Amino acid sequence: MKAGRRRWLIACGNIPVESTGREPELTSHDAISILNASDEDADIEVTVHHVDREPAGPYRLRVRARRVRRIRINDLIDPQAVPLGVDYALRMEATVPVVVQATRQDTSGRGAIMGGMAFPSE
Amino acid sequence: MKAGRRRWLIACGNIPVESTGREPELTSHDAISILNASDEDADIEVTVHHVDREPAGPYRLRVRARRVRRIRINDLIDPQAVPLGVDYALRMEATVPVVVQATRQDTSGRGAIMGGMAFPSE
Amino acid sequence: MKAGRRRWLIACGNIPVESTGREPELTSHDAISILNASDEDADIEVTVHHVDREPAGPYRLRVRARRVRRIRINDLIDPQAVPLGVDYALRMEATVPVVVQATRQDTSGRGAIMGGMAFPSE
Amino acid sequence: MKAGRRRWLIACGNIPVESTGREPELTSHDAISILNASDEDADIEVTVHHVDREPAGPYRLRVRARRVRRIRINDLIDPQAVPLGVDYALRMEATVPVVVQATRQDTSGRGAIMGGMAFPSE
Repeated sequence: MKAGRRRWLIACGNIPVESTGREPELTSHDAISILNASDEDADIEVTVHHVDREPAGPYRLRVRARRVRRIRINDLIDPQAVPLGVDYALRMEATVPVVVQATRQDTSGRGAIMGGMAFPSE
Repeated sequence: MKAGRRRWLIACGNIPVESTGREPELTSHDAISILNASDEDADIEVTVHHVDREPAGPYRLRVRARRVRRIRINDLIDPQAVPLGVDYALRMEATVPVVVQATRQDTSGRGAIMGGMAFPSE
Repeated sequence: MKAGRRRWLIACGNIPVESTGREPELTSHDAISILNASDEDADIEVTVHHVDREPAGPYRLRVRARRVRRIRINDLIDPQAVPLGVDYALRMEATVPVVVQATRQDTSGRGAIMGGMAFPSE
Repeated sequence: MKAGRRRWLIACGNIPVESTGREPELTSHDAISILNASDEDADIEVTVHHVDREPAGPYRLRVRARRVRRIRINDLIDPQAVPLGVDYALRMEATVPVVVQATRQDTSGRGAIMGGMAFPSE
């Protein structure tokens, strides 16, 4: 079973700046969830695209064999932090097929969540 | 008409712990909806992937021919309950093509819903 | 340009029963949006799948050439109304390629919207 | 790496009319995010489909090489503004492969966001 794809793209990133409500459950965030259903560890290179400057990266992530891992985008700090409240996009390349989904919780106003599949590239 | 796929993956599972508002309509939940538009019953094996331990399962579900069925993830208790409030992922294999969609209602804060297509694997 | 697909499936239908707030903007609803970007009218047969009985339909819709049309599911009444507050699924077959998206507004609790692409079948 | 597709469709557009809360963070909007991960600028022609009249356009957008750009639909004013509060659909053709995602923030009621992938056409 080839459980996913090796290349994924997300176009609509934007880390919400404000939060209201109990921490940490209601803290605003942008996150990606990566499922590696294979029997090999996945090494993933993330490139962050910006509105008005060259892409940053690679950011390096590992998701172990048969595990799922969720990464908050504001934890991507090496080689540089992803700025809050501005648009960004992600490009991911993994060494084995994985499934990537993006979720956002925005409690800056009255609280909302959204989720969407990232786009699997050829 | 081949109405769907036999293999589906969901990366961003997390059963909300808290709820506010009238039960049962406003109880928080993570759920999957499975449409079996074929003329044969679908037997589905679900594997639950975790952050820090080996996958659990198989959980066995049946969706009868020409029916839709919604399953709350906290009803997946055999061989073991899916823990609340932690990240998990799902891998599903069906004996006939089906369509799987995931929905979440989170009323722990101010109430939100999200829905997303699961990823159909090759 | 082949603008879409002829067959679409939605697994997670459920028409919210309650609404709060100004009508009609904040009335709860389940809806599908159909874009027919082609130069021919699209005739669409909708089959509604249920949890515990045989599918109902066909419901017949027309979306004219180069037009978009949004249909609230509770307007599907011929041959029979889709019941409120219970799970259902949709199968659609169009005479020309179209794009189908599903949206839900649920104001029964504190107000939420979700949207998701329907699944294009082979 | 072919990072996306050249043709995208969105069926469920509708610019929310009302907003509540702090501007500009909580202003209602319909938007598209376009990632051009390639090394060439992308010129994109957008056609807007309506419920009851012929399509409008082309609207012309440029997304520079290796950049992401978010466009609020109410900024599409040439050749004509997209009307508020009515259903519309979008068809996009780009000169290089891109990834398009749609997001909506609706604070007319109690605040909600939704996001969904646009549909990549053949």
